[in-house]
Amino acid sequence: MFSAMRAEILTIGDELCRGEIIDTNSSHLAARLWDLSITTRWMTSCNDDEADIATALAQAVARADFVVCSGGLGPTEDDLTVDVVARLAGVDPVIDEPARARLEAFFARRSAPVGPPGPAGAAPAPRTATGIQLRQVRVPAGARIHLNTVGLAPGFEIPIQGVPVICLPGFPREIQSILENSLDRRFAELREAGAAGGTVERIARRIYRVFGCGESQISQACRGMIDGVAGASIHYQVKFPETLVKLVVRGPDSAAVAAQLARFDAEIRDRLRGFLYGDGDESLPERTVRRLIEAGKTVATAESCTGGMLGELLTRRPGSSRVFLGGAITYADAEKTRQLGVQPQTLADHGAVSEPTVREMAIGARERFGADLTVAISGVAGPDGGTPEKPVGTVWLALASAAGVTAKLLSWPGSRDQVRTLASWWALKLLDEAV
Amino acid sequence: MFSAMRAEILTIGDELCRGEIIDTNSSHLAARLWDLSITTRWMTSCNDDEADIATALAQAVARADFVVCSGGLGPTEDDLTVDVVARLAGVDPVIDEPARARLEAFFARRSAPVGPPGPAGAAPAPRTATGIQLRQVRVPAGARIHLNTVGLAPGFEIPIQGVPVICLPGFPREIQSILENSLDRRFAELREAGAAGGTVERIARRIYRVFGCGESQISQACRGMIDGVAGASIHYQVKFPETLVKLVVRGPDSAAVAAQLARFDAEIRDRLRGFLYGDGDESLPERTVRRLIEAGKTVATAESCTGGMLGELLTRRPGSSRVFLGGAITYADAEKTRQLGVQPQTLADHGAVSEPTVREMAIGARERFGADLTVAISGVAGPDGGTPEKPVGTVWLALASAAGVTAKLLSWPGSRDQVRTLASWWALKLLDEAV
Repeated sequence: MFSAMRAEILTIGDELCRGEIIDTNSSHLAARLWDLSITTRWMTSCNDDEADIATALAQAVARADFVVCSGGLGPTEDDLTVDVVARLAGVDPVIDEPARARLEAFFARRSAPVGPPGPAGAAPAPRTATGIQLRQVRVPAGARIHLNTVGLAPGFEIPIQGVPVICLPGFPREIQSILENSLDRRFAELREAGAAGGTVERIARRIYRVFGCGESQISQACRGMIDGVAGASIHYQVKFPETLVKLVVRGPDSAAVAAQLARFDAEIRDRLRGFLYGDGDESLPERTVRRLIEAGKTVATAESCTGGMLGELLTRRPGSSRVFLGGAITYADAEKTRQLGVQPQTLADHGAVSEPTVREMAIGARERFGADLTVAISGVAGPDGGTPEKPVGTVWLALASAAGVTAKLLSWPGSRDQVRTLASWWALKLLDEAV
Repeated sequence: MFSAMRAEILTIGDELCRGEIIDTNSSHLAARLWDLSITTRWMTSCNDDEADIATALAQAVARADFVVCSGGLGPTEDDLTVDVVARLAGVDPVIDEPARARLEAFFARRSAPVGPPGPAGAAPAPRTATGIQLRQVRVPAGARIHLNTVGLAPGFEIPIQGVPVICLPGFPREIQSILENSLDRRFAELREAGAAGGTVERIARRIYRVFGCGESQISQACRGMIDGVAGASIHYQVKFPETLVKLVVRGPDSAAVAAQLARFDAEIRDRLRGFLYGDGDESLPERTVRRLIEAGKTVATAESCTGGMLGELLTRRPGSSRVFLGGAITYADAEKTRQLGVQPQTLADHGAVSEPTVREMAIGARERFGADLTVAISGVAGPDGGTPEKPVGTVWLALASAAGVTAKLLSWPGSRDQVRTLASWWALKLLDEAV
């Protein structure tokens, strides 16, 4: 039979049990495990309470093949995970020296005051780690370290009653870093170990990224595709403004599983043509900038309602300075004229949210920035400012290149943030298509 | 003594344990309970598995004053909550007739096919509820109904071993409807019942927003403040780049609780002076724009490494067009000269990331945009581009106003996103202080 490895996830924090933050770590970890065919049987959240953490851990090690905890590794007194895990593992907490070195280096480098804000005239804050800060670099003695290259608290792993217990910080970015550094490999290792004596299930999977249509359209387009294929499954995950389509094929034979995925791959690309822009981890902003860099084409932006969001998206990726020259944020109409040369008459006749205006914005930006490609956005982000002719969600976009100017109208009545995000992504899509 | 009502939340669904969806229901319910001073001690998620649901429920009723479940009330065969709860309550599942009537009315009204998608050319789908659809209007016999006016499956409540177990659908919108229809009142009722014979606990709380120092510094600054005050607690929540400090006072007497909170309020503002910028729900971007609007002061931005992030933050709030004129994103050095008039010699002598450059950027922006306040940002966001003199995380900021120009150096070696976010927030802080 297949590997039936069972994991349990425990997230720790008062803020979870008070509903102050949504636990995204459990689902993120469960998804990584599921991709490896490891079943998460229980996910539990408890408060920063020593007895409750101990109860949850004892229960987890009694019924799971391994346990993943998140939270409670910080420097404050209510961060108790290290102490409880160490006690249950029968060891003492000790300082992890490499983590202490990183902590010291961090404090030595930073220039902002690090001590408590004291009364005026108090001594300058220290630049070395104090006792409370050292709390976060403690681990149970003998623990295997899972390196955290984003934050200060290391991840670690130690068996309790022979069951591996992996402890991670509570910050999603730090968990991601630890997954990439070592934990993904460790999960795979645990899975192989769990399959000893049985047959390891083989998995082929691919994530497709879809932008420009909704989840129900996508699920309709994919309907029936996997029917009758044993071990095949398809899942949809909305990550506004895009949707991820996850295709998974499982079975005992690697080659058969890969061949089936390849057949599905061709079909899904056909069924979602025009909307599927990529696959894997690369999202549209990163893809667009990568392709601009590869093509050696420069870009500049002209933004009104998005207020800089498009520029921010284009500069998220390191290396964007090779292609992104800059942008004009022309929120006030007078700025559309001053910075981009939009004719006052155009604004008077057609309004700021109009095809003629965005065309002049894109052309004006191209002339002034001297970029190969420019894109302009002007719209009604809401919640106010809508009219019967131009309701909230009306956005005009224009792309200018050596080939001329093309314009596009969006009309999607979402929240202010959604309208702005959707407009910025459509601008990226226009750029991506024009590279 | 006080009411120390303890609730437990159980969310049920394979899609949760596979990490396909994030469980927002638990935190939503926990927040509602917390507002009523009901502590959620455990939150558990399990698969659509009869034995696991029964295990989780048995455990919950053994340790909680009441239990709230979500999920598993739908029409499909893997929706098992009604069956398991009925069995543990010692009753049979029965059709809830009012819910059946709504279901029938729903199917009579709808025009879209409701049956399973059949092969092309199959008979049109029926417009009456079939057996499988009736599954979702079943409840345990004798259950109290919690009306769901958004979806088809009713919420319900039935005691198991004397402990109230409240079962809700998995869709957040439906839970919200049930909360508003009856469940919020029911939670309050349970809380009062839990206090029978005792005193109902009164709560006063306030959230403080702190920017410019880390969680460990903040907790150090607040150390000892609540010591010896019964019913007082203080919690820290990092929401990079800010930290929320939550102060809670509980006790039997409303006036005493409020008075204690007022004493703490004065003290915490003193202890966190210079870093505490506000309280409540208003974050720094919204606060800054609100205060600019109130003061009638206009603003423009000059951004390099943040690429538009500051402009995006300043335009998140509706009404920002009353004060935000626009911005110059000058990613390339030539753009700093073209758009803002930075002297090429300044760039050559001091580099783009320098005090002279950001000063010229801020002054140039103020002259060109004609804004009351302008702020300029230029830094090394990383991960590449750092030098020994200007490592990653080095950011210069300048603020120009009628009073002159002030500059500030940041030096915080975080990730690219963190450096950019921190720089944008510091720019907001400079603006907020200058309003």
